[in-house]
Amino acid sequence: MRVYSTEKDQLTAILSRSYSETADVSAVVTKIIARVQKDGDQALYQLIEEIDQVTLSSLAVTEAEIEAAKSAVSTELLEVMTQAKENILAFHKKQVRQGFVSTEPNGVVMGQRISPLARVGVYVPGGTAAYPSTVLMDVLPAKIAGVKKIVMITPTDHEGNVPAAILAAASIAGVDNVYKVGGAHGVAALAYGTETIPKVDKIVGPGNIYVATAKKMVYGEVDIDMIAGPSDVLIVADHTVNPRWVAADLLAQAEHDKLAQAILVTTEEDLIDDVQAEIAQQLATLPRRAIAEAAIETNGKIILVKDLAEGLSIANQIAPEHLELAVAEPFALLGKVENAGSVFLGHHTPEVLGDYFAGPNHTLPTEGTARFYSPLSVDDFVKKSSYLYYTEEAMREAAHAVELFAETEELMGHARSMKVRRGEEA
Amino acid sequence: MRVYSTEKDQLTAILSRSYSETADVSAVVTKIIARVQKDGDQALYQLIEEIDQVTLSSLAVTEAEIEAAKSAVSTELLEVMTQAKENILAFHKKQVRQGFVSTEPNGVVMGQRISPLARVGVYVPGGTAAYPSTVLMDVLPAKIAGVKKIVMITPTDHEGNVPAAILAAASIAGVDNVYKVGGAHGVAALAYGTETIPKVDKIVGPGNIYVATAKKMVYGEVDIDMIAGPSDVLIVADHTVNPRWVAADLLAQAEHDKLAQAILVTTEEDLIDDVQAEIAQQLATLPRRAIAEAAIETNGKIILVKDLAEGLSIANQIAPEHLELAVAEPFALLGKVENAGSVFLGHHTPEVLGDYFAGPNHTLPTEGTARFYSPLSVDDFVKKSSYLYYTEEAMREAAHAVELFAETEELMGHARSMKVRRGEEA
Repeated sequence: MRVYSTEKDQLTAILSRSYSETADVSAVVTKIIARVQKDGDQALYQLIEEIDQVTLSSLAVTEAEIEAAKSAVSTELLEVMTQAKENILAFHKKQVRQGFVSTEPNGVVMGQRISPLARVGVYVPGGTAAYPSTVLMDVLPAKIAGVKKIVMITPTDHEGNVPAAILAAASIAGVDNVYKVGGAHGVAALAYGTETIPKVDKIVGPGNIYVATAKKMVYGEVDIDMIAGPSDVLIVADHTVNPRWVAADLLAQAEHDKLAQAILVTTEEDLIDDVQAEIAQQLATLPRRAIAEAAIETNGKIILVKDLAEGLSIANQIAPEHLELAVAEPFALLGKVENAGSVFLGHHTPEVLGDYFAGPNHTLPTEGTARFYSPLSVDDFVKKSSYLYYTEEAMREAAHAVELFAETEELMGHARSMKVRRGEEA
Repeated sequence: MRVYSTEKDQLTAILSRSYSETADVSAVVTKIIARVQKDGDQALYQLIEEIDQVTLSSLAVTEAEIEAAKSAVSTELLEVMTQAKENILAFHKKQVRQGFVSTEPNGVVMGQRISPLARVGVYVPGGTAAYPSTVLMDVLPAKIAGVKKIVMITPTDHEGNVPAAILAAASIAGVDNVYKVGGAHGVAALAYGTETIPKVDKIVGPGNIYVATAKKMVYGEVDIDMIAGPSDVLIVADHTVNPRWVAADLLAQAEHDKLAQAILVTTEEDLIDDVQAEIAQQLATLPRRAIAEAAIETNGKIILVKDLAEGLSIANQIAPEHLELAVAEPFALLGKVENAGSVFLGHHTPEVLGDYFAGPNHTLPTEGTARFYSPLSVDDFVKKSSYLYYTEEAMREAAHAVELFAETEELMGHARSMKVRRGEEA
């Protein structure tokens, strides 16, 4: 891992990030979306053949396939997923909000209603990133919100099958329908609807660059959760930290993706060599070594800071997806955190506890977007609506102000809307 | 206005909407954004000359200009804007949320923090759509949220001046800085920052097709409020309605923009001719007649329904920005409203009350996006962050479940992050 020091290096160098080149996929994605919009299911079957090299006879996963999947996974895994579900539900239920109403003495009533989205589409990646935990994290907040129809799309393997754990998780989470399509074509199907796949109001879930590009393109036609990039972790460590644990946590992030970013920010110069040695040792036996090693080499960083306050300042500028505060008094630092998706406090709270099990959501803002994005939550699956009621008398009281405002904006039709109600000639 | 009847016409015909052609502006906007990203202020000055045909000596509005603007507008207008501000603040303060925390008997602590965005940019259109009300509506929720820095951008007239009412509103609302730039170039400046204009975390506010396209393109680099299109109103009217008032409200919407949409949904066949006659009469004396007439002809609709339940069903499918329930018992219909930005109840609550004065926000989802977007609110100016703390014992209790889950996902580095903490060899 590259080592920086706030004493010797420029901040811009410390904060810089190497991205591997990504081809411009916009043109490809534009064409895919247009085909799905025009030809619906037929385009989907063709695109699945062309892009995924699978020939499907049906897009919908059947009830029999779901049942078979549940039989195929171990009882133990079903139990663990069910326990994770309970934890996720318990945490997310605290996010549920009520509307409000204000009733004024002059008869005016105004308020805000909160209601669930009608239809939501959840994207679940395939391949090496097929994570049943993502199914639970993305579906359960929508269930709590009261979304009536939750559909899931996910690509299949070359035999047209979806991994059993994914289907089992979908069943546990309460997904209404699962469809065998991924990529930009899957996103387009959710955004515009096809004969088989319903048009939804919002698309959530992570995906590769094609999925992210398609989500951005259909944004506005439907809502999306966020534009997600590679995952990252930043660990702030003081002298009380265990280098072996720090190395394991950095590698847990690095094994996701060659573009994943693992950063250690520490006050302890002594720690640096120990962590580097641990990383080398642990990498040797890591099954996903090639990926993790590439990530550590490209985007891994150790940043030496003079104190924890400076460490937090660096963290806030990076705005990590996951922030581990591996220090003696983690709660004392929590109030200094300005930008982070999820914060893990103390030595016994590795990020993986949050990835799978504890309750908070693992769909989090990446690439510094914690400056403005939030973890996926029940809020993502509701919409608000305001309402207003005036009595005749209250309307007359407000009329002069409204008319003056409208006339300032040279909108005489607006002013007239009040005037006719006051009995003036139109 | 075109007249439809649910008895005679197909639903698809009733719901269809004519859009006027819009040239593909993507290529133009892409180039503008690239220029601003590369050359900062210099590109802005050049683009303002090229596109807006104004030569500016400075981008920032000075304190002297603000003071001059406040002197230039009437005391009465300042008072009306201040009263509107109070009403808007009172309503939006009810939207403020608290975080939560859960402390478990086993020592686990987890919660959600809510904190303001650091920097927000508000786009205020120029030209005939220069509305001081928009300044109040877009800035005040950000103030309540606690945003530290709120900057506003707006194009100038050909002499390089911003309308006095706009600057006065900015001062009343508490904007920190105002810059004289609009269009896609203004959006790019807020998204990437220039020497003069700070990079923000979120851009809010309405604009033309160039602004909307630029906002979509920079989405992900910064957050945006929504992608806004032409404004619309849908009025549900029963036999108790006054045709003159209905006509005035339809025209208040139509005068905004040739693409604005005004729809009347009614149970009363008799009402149709009366409203058409009133529209013709009121149009004759409307200053913005040309705009309103074009909007009424292109997108104006009267839809005859068999009862109010069917009327609400049509309204929910259209998902209007503004929904007026001009009926005898409006509160009885409120629970049937599924998709609408803002609802105006009864005969004495024209939309204009909400546009300027009452308190709820007037920045609302357009073009049917009330299916998933919400009115602008304090929520738009905060972000959430979760946090988690486990004790060693609680970590050990959860370890088996987490490791099983990680192993299912073939992420052995994740499992190891737990194992090393349990004392197993890495």
